[in-house]
Amino acid sequence: MKNKLKIKINNRTSTVGVIGLGYVGLPIILRFSELGFKTIGFDIDRKKIASLNSFESYIKHISNEEISSALNKGLLATSNFEELKKVDIVIICVPTPLKRDNTPNLSFIEKTLSQMEPHIKPNQLLILESTTYPGTTEELIIPFIGQCGYKIGEDYFVGYSPERLDPGNLEFDFKNIPKVISGYSKDCLELMNALYSQVVIKTVSVSSLRVAEMTKMLENIQRSVNIGLMNELKIVADKMNIDLFEVINAAASKPFGFIPYFPGPGLGGHCIPIDPFYLTWKAKKLGAKTELIDLAGKINKKMPDFVISKIKKQLKKINKQFKNSSILILGIAYKKNTDDLRESPSLVILDKLIKLGSKVKYYDPYIPILPKTRNCNYSLESIDLSSDKIKLFDLVLVATDHDDIDYDLIIKNSKSLIDTRGKFNLSEKVVRA
Amino acid sequence: MKNKLKIKINNRTSTVGVIGLGYVGLPIILRFSELGFKTIGFDIDRKKIASLNSFESYIKHISNEEISSALNKGLLATSNFEELKKVDIVIICVPTPLKRDNTPNLSFIEKTLSQMEPHIKPNQLLILESTTYPGTTEELIIPFIGQCGYKIGEDYFVGYSPERLDPGNLEFDFKNIPKVISGYSKDCLELMNALYSQVVIKTVSVSSLRVAEMTKMLENIQRSVNIGLMNELKIVADKMNIDLFEVINAAASKPFGFIPYFPGPGLGGHCIPIDPFYLTWKAKKLGAKTELIDLAGKINKKMPDFVISKIKKQLKKINKQFKNSSILILGIAYKKNTDDLRESPSLVILDKLIKLGSKVKYYDPYIPILPKTRNCNYSLESIDLSSDKIKLFDLVLVATDHDDIDYDLIIKNSKSLIDTRGKFNLSEKVVRA
Repeated sequence: MKNKLKIKINNRTSTVGVIGLGYVGLPIILRFSELGFKTIGFDIDRKKIASLNSFESYIKHISNEEISSALNKGLLATSNFEELKKVDIVIICVPTPLKRDNTPNLSFIEKTLSQMEPHIKPNQLLILESTTYPGTTEELIIPFIGQCGYKIGEDYFVGYSPERLDPGNLEFDFKNIPKVISGYSKDCLELMNALYSQVVIKTVSVSSLRVAEMTKMLENIQRSVNIGLMNELKIVADKMNIDLFEVINAAASKPFGFIPYFPGPGLGGHCIPIDPFYLTWKAKKLGAKTELIDLAGKINKKMPDFVISKIKKQLKKINKQFKNSSILILGIAYKKNTDDLRESPSLVILDKLIKLGSKVKYYDPYIPILPKTRNCNYSLESIDLSSDKIKLFDLVLVATDHDDIDYDLIIKNSKSLIDTRGKFNLSEKVVRA
Repeated sequence: MKNKLKIKINNRTSTVGVIGLGYVGLPIILRFSELGFKTIGFDIDRKKIASLNSFESYIKHISNEEISSALNKGLLATSNFEELKKVDIVIICVPTPLKRDNTPNLSFIEKTLSQMEPHIKPNQLLILESTTYPGTTEELIIPFIGQCGYKIGEDYFVGYSPERLDPGNLEFDFKNIPKVISGYSKDCLELMNALYSQVVIKTVSVSSLRVAEMTKMLENIQRSVNIGLMNELKIVADKMNIDLFEVINAAASKPFGFIPYFPGPGLGGHCIPIDPFYLTWKAKKLGAKTELIDLAGKINKKMPDFVISKIKKQLKKINKQFKNSSILILGIAYKKNTDDLRESPSLVILDKLIKLGSKVKYYDPYIPILPKTRNCNYSLESIDLSSDKIKLFDLVLVATDHDDIDYDLIIKNSKSLIDTRGKFNLSEKVVRA
């Protein structure tokens, strides 16, 4: 049965179904469509499906043209899981967030499996791309397939391949990022390679599902810990009257053994603040310590407080307190050049400042209206940036350093600047936080 | 006065004196000599001076020919600090180790300054290259020059430039590693640039002595923390039956945002186990926390214990205990392809194993005889490696992965292998630690 599926994969007569059409799933299905695979995209969010069927992208860096092109090639976008019957390859790209107690929330994967259950058929290749702790595929997906009555490696195939997308990265997208792949058995891995070697520049096979799961953990944990280190050192440098951004840029001149990571106002996004907790949860169950990861998480989480303390100090210099101050936050997205608000530290800071009594406005060219969220429930719109407007604020906080902000306008017209991104050189007016 | 010295630097009629002719100072003075500067090398270690004057190198990667060539060009190697009178530029490259209580031991710098005092003269440029905490040059050297009656920036000049050498690195040496430079004043920095831009590929000027000191701290702290992270994750992966080396190599296929660091049996050398404590000591004095750095240090320091625990487990498998076991340690140097024993974790492991009752031998092509040190006082010589010899040991521990070890011979003939460097693929016989 493996060979039959392999042929269908190789001659692109197989149908690829992607479940979860967000930042990860949408680029993947578009890529398969581009290469001539038949594609069916599934999402329980009917707004996403309606948007796609109206030829409209809901992700900033994906164009409407790409959507149209895929639809014209036959992409079916649907919330109806019965269509799964037509699918040879199922790729699960659903979110893996945290519960309120910071433990893994696998409910999206679990829900996906139960939706699949009535429609599962022999000789499918099921792939998980969601980021998760080592052991998830073995503990959740393998038994599920068994319960469905199939024997993995014989009449059903399972693999894990972590997504590695970096939204907003203009140099690397789905196509040219090497893809780590793994399979439950040798045959599973062979099918994984047949599939992914067609759509990405290079596949990197590893020896087990767990190793592939751990690889993604490692990548994001390294980032979290290194940013944590820079955040810790930023406070140390501050005490020493040293600008850590200058130090990092100088260290980056070393041609080996150093990679620049930068401090910031805190961590944001769907990966770095969340993924490490997946590993630490599992490690703790096994009795292994993850002290460095835990500590880095704690430091990163406290960074908005450091920013607030610097704002307080700066306000004091101009004889202001929070309650009679007006503050402009530049950048609300968690990451530059994106409209992604998930876990954005700007929102944490905004919320804290408002609660401390400041009048707060924001400017973000990518987020014209602030959507209300559970933790940040204010009616705010991005202001229009002008010299007159900027002059009205006691203090401007650079929280996200989007490229297309007019920084000259800002430095010229602001009374006082708190810069968490190393965008401005230090001066009377500019303070780091 | 600055211009006079600058001319002498630019036309290479100035005399460069280097104090401390170890791993850092010797390559530097050889480079100045190569470029035609007059050079005088100072060291209180008369054995080093005698060796140089016998045309013999005492550092593995520096050849006798390089020494001869410098002597032929007029290099004077001496323990007599009166010669300092002839020097225009003084470069201090003395060690900055730790005291027993893990606080900075600046006695070598202090001793150097007192040796210089009688011979100091106007219009010198004094440079510190030793790794140290931010503030050292300002707090130690600047007042000293003031006490000598000079005015820095007018009739005396002071700079700091951290050494960045990586002994054993065949790609990057003194010449082609960009050099971070700083000066007490603008004129000091101008002289620093005049000097170093002649001898290295590129200079990187920073705004203060402190920033230059911090740059070196950052480089080594990043390394220490990242190795600490890999060491922590190695133990986590071990509990999950995952080979972290496979994971790191897979993660390294990501073309952005990931840099491979590898776990090991512990930290060694003069930099990584020591430098971070310089910063943490100073930070604590200023009331700033360095929790991540402290924790990484703690984890790295405990790694030999993890290795011992894995050896114990492996011995148990073959019904052995420490006291009736024979163990071969491969690699005693702290770093591959060097003869550098400083702080080597192999020595810590060797000492622990002997104290636990094992019969221990070692093989290291670079260290034929084990020098006795304060912490490791055994009469041992490197064994000759042969199939018969290897077969005699219950267990072989790969501690340092020198390139020119015959690993085939080892895997073929060893009964059991504990590999701390990811040199062998895992098997019945090979276990990670």
